[in-house]
Parts: sequence; structure tokens; C-alpha cells
Amino acid sequence: MDNVRVIEVKRSVFENNDRDADRLRAELKQRGTFLLNLMSSPGSGKTTTLERTIEALSSELRIAVMEADIDSDVDTRRVLAKGVRAIQLHTGGMCHLDADMCRQGVRELGDEQIDLAFLENVGNLVCPAEFDTGASANAMILSVPEGDDKPLKYPLMFQVCNVVLVNKIDVAPYFDFDLDKLRENVAMRNPMARVIPICAKTGEGMDEWYDWLRQQLANWKA
Amino acid sequence: MDNVRVIEVKRSVFENNDRDADRLRAELKQRGTFLLNLMSSPGSGKTTTLERTIEALSSELRIAVMEADIDSDVDTRRVLAKGVRAIQLHTGGMCHLDADMCRQGVRELGDEQIDLAFLENVGNLVCPAEFDTGASANAMILSVPEGDDKPLKYPLMFQVCNVVLVNKIDVAPYFDFDLDKLRENVAMRNPMARVIPICAKTGEGMDEWYDWLRQQLANWKA
Repeated sequence: MDNVRVIEVKRSVFENNDRDADRLRAELKQRGTFLLNLMSSPGSGKTTTLERTIEALSSELRIAVMEADIDSDVDTRRVLAKGVRAIQLHTGGMCHLDADMCRQGVRELGDEQIDLAFLENVGNLVCPAEFDTGASANAMILSVPEGDDKPLKYPLMFQVCNVVLVNKIDVAPYFDFDLDKLRENVAMRNPMARVIPICAKTGEGMDEWYDWLRQQLANWKA
Repeated sequence: MDNVRVIEVKRSVFENNDRDADRLRAELKQRGTFLLNLMSSPGSGKTTTLERTIEALSSELRIAVMEADIDSDVDTRRVLAKGVRAIQLHTGGMCHLDADMCRQGVRELGDEQIDLAFLENVGNLVCPAEFDTGASANAMILSVPEGDDKPLKYPLMFQVCNVVLVNKIDVAPYFDFDLDKLRENVAMRNPMARVIPICAKTGEGMDEWYDWLRQQLANWKA
């Protein structure tokens, strides 16, 4: 397990992140790789969700993971243990990834065919929402302990996401968390966003998430 | 409750944030106001912790609160309901507060004597740690559901904090959270940081936090 590949990603020399993002999206389309940008607060369960998703889908899809972190490679080690290609992107203190940093990661994944690539972004509800990474879709995880009022406070994150996974739904009885209120708050920011309650630890609700992913890939290929 | 004062804080025209921070710190010392910068991930319990702290200490200290948020004023309304002065700082999408933004907030609190001012920073474990706000001390809340590995992933936040409140300790049995491991991880980043397990909802452990605050104020005044 000492062979974690760590890429020190550099800030783009191009100022135009949106242009970079569109170019990367076109390149990924060409090579047939659907890139999902996964965002959340620290500790919401991104890596656990990815681990279980890989277990469920790796027999039908060739999956790879890029783990962005300011420091450490603990997440990449966890994902590698699931038998898929994974690399660590070190952001050098940066609080988000931009499209060019993401491209550096994609290049390091190599030339083998990848159907579905996950970008686990830096744990942060603010800055990652501001930068188009070139991903085909954006997903976020909100965990129950964080509260149902988060769309009020972090509007952009909810606006840019196609799906909101509500994780740790198993502990809902121990928190003041109202799923209907959350749905309402999400809809206020983004009426198109799909809300899927899950428990990545137990597997509850995960089938709906897998079906959503399969549908996204099918639409994207069509 | 419609009279929440909202300040749209602007980015400093000065490039030197450290100089601004030192100047603000000197001004606050002069007026006898201890400023505590409170940071955490979204939903870790900053506002609940402040509500209970105000209840406990407002008979012995004149307290005021500055609530920084990208949007909404829900936190300020909660704090105002506790009967202390509170203002809302809107950061205009910014992911942190700098010293000049903090000074704009302090000015808006007015001329009345304040012994203890809290700055509730934007919920974010990355960017707020990079900017000295001019505060007399830094505190952070890590909640149990976020996990004991966070000092590995967000090193700077743990390095700059004088105290780490480990909140939602009541739900520890439902999560894979090892308090000893957390203490070890915090110590690796910052051997001087005090770690205090609390439950802001039930009050567990809060006396130790109040004593820590009283001690900080006494040392600062001495």
C-alpha cells in the first residue's frame, strides 16, 4: 500500500477556467469517460459513499477515482483497496480544484478506458462550487448531522449540483433533521436537483443513487 | 425580529492582512474587548454552542456576536433571541473573513463596552484558517460525525486554533469516533491546543469551555 500516486496539482496558467472546463469536458466525451464531481463538507461521507458505489458498480463499469486533499492520502488508500485505479491530488493548501488541476489528474489516470471517473473534491461547501472542474455532472453529499438549513447558508453549492445525497440517514432520529424541510430548502435553490436519502455505511437508499448514475451515463452517451 | 442588522462586508483595500489584523488586535485591546474567532465545518454546532455560552456567561460578561454568512440571517436571529448585541456580516460569496472585514463588523457593534465578542466565521475548515481576523484567540468546533481523522486532512485549521471543541459527544456511540485518536491527531498538528469534548445541546462538558474562556480573558487582561 505504499504505492499511492500523489500528484501535486498546480494552478492553471490560463485565467479562463470556464474555457478550460469546457475543453476538458469535450476531451472526456471523446474518450468516453463520464466525470462526476463529488463535493461536501468535511466528514459527510464522500469516501464511504465512493467505496460502496465502487463495490456495486465495478462489475458493470470501469471506474477510476481522483482524490483531492490538501494533505494526506488516507482516502486514496481506502479507494485503492477496492481494486480500482485511484490517484491522490494534493492541492497545496488550495480549497478547491479548478479545471486545469482536474485535467492534470485525468492525465495521470493513464490511457486505459474509464467509463466513470469520480473526482472527490476538497471537503468544503463554499469554494469548490465556484469552479467548474470540467465534470459531466456535479453531486454533493449533505449529512444529516449538518442540518436541514444548509441550502440557506451555502446557496451556490446547491445551485450547481444535479443531485444531493442526504447521507447518514440512519442517525436521523438522534438529530433535529427534517427531510421534508431539507427538500423544500434544496428546491428553493435548485428545483431541478434530485434529493436521495442514503446511508453509505448500511447501504440504505444506495440503489436509487446507482440508478441515477446509470441514467446519467445513458443520457450522456445518447 | 425584522431588525437584524446586515453588513455587506467588503474586501480590504490593503493587501497586508497581517498588518490589519495586528492593528485591529491593538484597537480591541485598547477598548477592552476580547475577540474570539470561532470556526468549524458547516453544521458542527457553532451557533448552538454560542447560544448556550451566552446563556451561561451573559450575567458576568458583556457579550456581542458577529455572524458571518454567505447568505441568510438565521444564525443572527437565534443569537439576538438570547438578548445580546448581534450583527450579520454578509461576505458576498467569500469563503472567509479577513481582518478588515472583521473591523467593519466591530465598528458596527457600536461604542458600548463589550468584554467578549464572538466572531462566528463562515462554515469552512480551509480558507478561514488562512486569514488572521485580528482575534485574540481562535477556537474551532469539530463535531463527532465528521470523524477523528480531520486533523490529517485540514492541518492548518488545527494549527491555528487554541482550543478544539469536540461537539455532539452525545452521539459518539452511533459513530466510529475515537476520542483518544482525535487527541493524538490534534496533538500532531498542534501540541498546545486544548481539546474539550462537549455537547452544546445537552450542556455536557460546557463548564470546562466556560472556564477556558474565563482563563483566556484573565490572562489577556493581565
